[in-house]
Amino acid sequence: MGFSSHFIRASAALQHHPSKFLVLVALSSGSLVAYSESQPDAVTSAADLTQKEPRKKRLVVLGTGWAGTSFLKDLDVSQYDVQVVSPRNYFAFTPLLPSVTCGTVEARSIVEPVRKIIRKRKGDIDFLEAECYKIDAANNKVLCRSIVENLVGPKEFSLEYDYLVVAMGAQVNTFNTPGVKENCHFLKEVEDAQKIRRSVIDCFENAILPGLSEEERRTSLHFVIVGGGPTGVEFAAELHDFFSEDLVNIYPMVREFVKITLIQAGDHILNTFDERISSFAESKFARDGIEVQTGCRVLSVSDKDISVKDKAKGQIFQVPYGMVVWSTGIGTRPVITDFMEQIGQGKRRVLATDEWLQVKGCQNVYALGDCATIDQRKIMDDISAIFKAADKDNSGTLTVEEFQDVMADILIRYPQLDLYLKSKHLRDVSDLLRDPQGNSRKEVDIEGFKLALSQVDAQMKSLPATAQVAAQQGAYLSNCFNRMELCKKNPEGPLQFKGSGRHSFRPFRYKHFGQFAPLGGEQAAAELPGDWVSMGQSTQWLWYSVYASKQVSWRTRVLVVSDWTRRFIFGRDSSRI
Amino acid sequence: MGFSSHFIRASAALQHHPSKFLVLVALSSGSLVAYSESQPDAVTSAADLTQKEPRKKRLVVLGTGWAGTSFLKDLDVSQYDVQVVSPRNYFAFTPLLPSVTCGTVEARSIVEPVRKIIRKRKGDIDFLEAECYKIDAANNKVLCRSIVENLVGPKEFSLEYDYLVVAMGAQVNTFNTPGVKENCHFLKEVEDAQKIRRSVIDCFENAILPGLSEEERRTSLHFVIVGGGPTGVEFAAELHDFFSEDLVNIYPMVREFVKITLIQAGDHILNTFDERISSFAESKFARDGIEVQTGCRVLSVSDKDISVKDKAKGQIFQVPYGMVVWSTGIGTRPVITDFMEQIGQGKRRVLATDEWLQVKGCQNVYALGDCATIDQRKIMDDISAIFKAADKDNSGTLTVEEFQDVMADILIRYPQLDLYLKSKHLRDVSDLLRDPQGNSRKEVDIEGFKLALSQVDAQMKSLPATAQVAAQQGAYLSNCFNRMELCKKNPEGPLQFKGSGRHSFRPFRYKHFGQFAPLGGEQAAAELPGDWVSMGQSTQWLWYSVYASKQVSWRTRVLVVSDWTRRFIFGRDSSRI
Repeated sequence: MGFSSHFIRASAALQHHPSKFLVLVALSSGSLVAYSESQPDAVTSAADLTQKEPRKKRLVVLGTGWAGTSFLKDLDVSQYDVQVVSPRNYFAFTPLLPSVTCGTVEARSIVEPVRKIIRKRKGDIDFLEAECYKIDAANNKVLCRSIVENLVGPKEFSLEYDYLVVAMGAQVNTFNTPGVKENCHFLKEVEDAQKIRRSVIDCFENAILPGLSEEERRTSLHFVIVGGGPTGVEFAAELHDFFSEDLVNIYPMVREFVKITLIQAGDHILNTFDERISSFAESKFARDGIEVQTGCRVLSVSDKDISVKDKAKGQIFQVPYGMVVWSTGIGTRPVITDFMEQIGQGKRRVLATDEWLQVKGCQNVYALGDCATIDQRKIMDDISAIFKAADKDNSGTLTVEEFQDVMADILIRYPQLDLYLKSKHLRDVSDLLRDPQGNSRKEVDIEGFKLALSQVDAQMKSLPATAQVAAQQGAYLSNCFNRMELCKKNPEGPLQFKGSGRHSFRPFRYKHFGQFAPLGGEQAAAELPGDWVSMGQSTQWLWYSVYASKQVSWRTRVLVVSDWTRRFIFGRDSSRI
Repeated sequence: MGFSSHFIRASAALQHHPSKFLVLVALSSGSLVAYSESQPDAVTSAADLTQKEPRKKRLVVLGTGWAGTSFLKDLDVSQYDVQVVSPRNYFAFTPLLPSVTCGTVEARSIVEPVRKIIRKRKGDIDFLEAECYKIDAANNKVLCRSIVENLVGPKEFSLEYDYLVVAMGAQVNTFNTPGVKENCHFLKEVEDAQKIRRSVIDCFENAILPGLSEEERRTSLHFVIVGGGPTGVEFAAELHDFFSEDLVNIYPMVREFVKITLIQAGDHILNTFDERISSFAESKFARDGIEVQTGCRVLSVSDKDISVKDKAKGQIFQVPYGMVVWSTGIGTRPVITDFMEQIGQGKRRVLATDEWLQVKGCQNVYALGDCATIDQRKIMDDISAIFKAADKDNSGTLTVEEFQDVMADILIRYPQLDLYLKSKHLRDVSDLLRDPQGNSRKEVDIEGFKLALSQVDAQMKSLPATAQVAAQQGAYLSNCFNRMELCKKNPEGPLQFKGSGRHSFRPFRYKHFGQFAPLGGEQAAAELPGDWVSMGQSTQWLWYSVYASKQVSWRTRVLVVSDWTRRFIFGRDSSRI
């Protein structure tokens, strides 16, 4: 094909999208030919495009959940050759999943195509709808497989990377309870929520068929939720609202038979929240007639009933059900377990990263969100190195002033120290260095120093597996990637106590902005920053406004708000689709 | 359980729904106990409730499509004990299904729960979500099966009827073409449209994966529609809009590879429409780059390609595809075929009813919508009886006046006569009775009468399988049911030429209000009453307003209009859910 035909094709293209193609021509002039010929084969074309300029680093991102999307949103893609792999070509606003189960919000209102999110960025990002089934750390390669059925062409492909960002999230944790996979609903993906919605309607349609005994009708309308965390509690609340506000009018003949039971292994529901919220939720549920069975463990689930053990009494009893939703925490995906074995983390339960989200044992791989956990360095592991770095005159003792000089770095490197100071109401270093009797000291030796800091590491806490943490990690990491070159030259992190110089970046630090627990009937509870707790209808309105504002695009914002409005006016739809 | 506990329960119920329960109490006072105890078993409770009053006739309705819903909407349920059986607990506004395939309108915006529609009616209607798998005409019974998976209690049940209304619609007709069921998409149900939507996105995601040849990319993006009727044409148009307005921005790298092909067995697409519309559609599609292959028959469909025969040239060629939608007309459901055999219609292709929608060979069964066809009585079959009835003086000849006296009845009973008169531009009876030379006659004998009417039956046409016909039939039949007793006493139908007296009702008569063919790009064509044809953008706006006004509820009306608005503002969503 000669130049002229390309020219014609390019001109035709220009008529359709003048601005877009002008940019392309200006940026990569000669390589337009390569683009239009072989762009679809992303790997090849990327190679073609970059032959003439110094090759950009290849960055592969796995996953488009909260962590991955938040990373991509702020990434300066002009610096990298980015490829994103995920089995979902959309980002889902997961905190609204429980609302989707009952049609308070539509599934499509909480999703946004990944391509629309990344298209706003300058430069090119390739998105590939596939799942990564193996990370080959030794060869800097990921092996992927398309999720499309009846595929045209090869189903598998591999991508090479210079940097890999793993943000694949976690999977449901059944704790190997028999029958859970086969008989329970989950609530992690959009499809799960859609299935639950159909299933709720099925239970009602089932219950009113002729020929059932009263017992069978009761069973069909017994909704069981296993797990009293925020998701399980919110789903129970949504279900109760769905029934009492909408379904009772449509299926009045079975109103007496409906029952919702929440099974919780711990002593209280919402036990990661403030106690006041826990008991507010429990008394709200008691008023609503939602049965909460605390201290109970599920032993197995058959297609007819659940086998439950009351831990205190030691009794085992059978609970017949119409539908079970399993919502009890998260587990590691097989691909991550396999990766962990490759890099010497085989004995751990969760993939560990350092405080810069870099996977331990793997230079160029980063992991964030629910698929990894930050393994915070203990201050006691570095205590001698810290002492040595602080003791500038090599006197063998540390003065208050010497300690003060490195204090800022220590606080950044070991955030548990800050928590410790706050928990002990200590104001500064001199307080910390007081002797066991409480008298202030001018200087301490290594043993005294160790003793003073010996309780600090007890303050370490791993971060919860929430959207908030994942989103902050994504934003943090993209910021690091954007300033990679800059910060290598001008490190902005704390002192390297072991080794020399400074870390390139400040470590990731999580800021907790609070947490909501919607409880149904226009009631919500919230933990707000500064140990505030807010409960009631006004909190529900706060919830509406926060969740509306947090939407990823104007489209989803408009849709979610109009869904809420529609629900107020017309109620929820009970069609089985 | 004593009276007091019932009283408490009833009082509690009253607080929630005062108006509803007051009506119940007033109507059936003592039987409230029976109601709250055994209402869920619909058959039993209906029997309980009606022990003290003369038993209402049991009316079973199969299906909740256009025909069934339209019948139920206007039925006076105080006269009957109504049970509705359908595998779909919602009514779907099917003319908007093609819009759902590409997300122009959301699936949930075009459905309305059947219970919400029938709840507005006075009296009680039981709806059962199940499919009828056998009509037992001899025993006045239908056998049904629930569609719920993992059902609690028995899966099957039977219902007895005094009257049965069959409105189950039709199924897809594959004409026994091999591979169609396995490899093609259909477009009859809401689920079909949702599957197509995911599949379109899959084809695009597939096409941009690494490692595919250009040929494979082209194949993946080749969308084939078999059938050039209104549904197929509208889907092709929607798909083209989806691609050119939305997907091209998201998948610009494969813009050249997309192709839409419409395969039509006849010589033109939209061949039930006016010729002007046909050719307008064909030239619009040619401009859009949609390939129309007329005169082609599909021989078989494999998982990779379609085997097509060009009927004129006799050639057979293979068409590789990414996705096929099969949209070529309708076939009879197995349960109807079985029913037809029971009642001596085994040799027919479609269930036949008389002009009153009563199934031939079955006194108390009515059929309407796509599952049946009206077998219009030929005028020539009754010609002697008509002559005899008209010839009041038994003179053996018919005067113009005698004929005139029965003309109104004949026109009602044999609508083909009206069509014949119009087609021949005849003004009245005297014109009809002219001799072959065109001279007017005062009277004719039986042979002359036969000759005059011999061409009339050629005007008979069976009604198209459209929503419009089904809806009108439903409305007609409910009107008959509402006035059943009244019209038995005071028949309002035409003379019974064979037999004596009059028919109870006037036969069903279809009024054609026109037909739309949306062609994409804000262009539509319409056939309007009075042989008008309208094409272009204004017709599209007419389409918007007609379809908005035809919605079954205010909820769906608001949703459909807001979906259109959302599409104008934000475009269509490309998330694969």
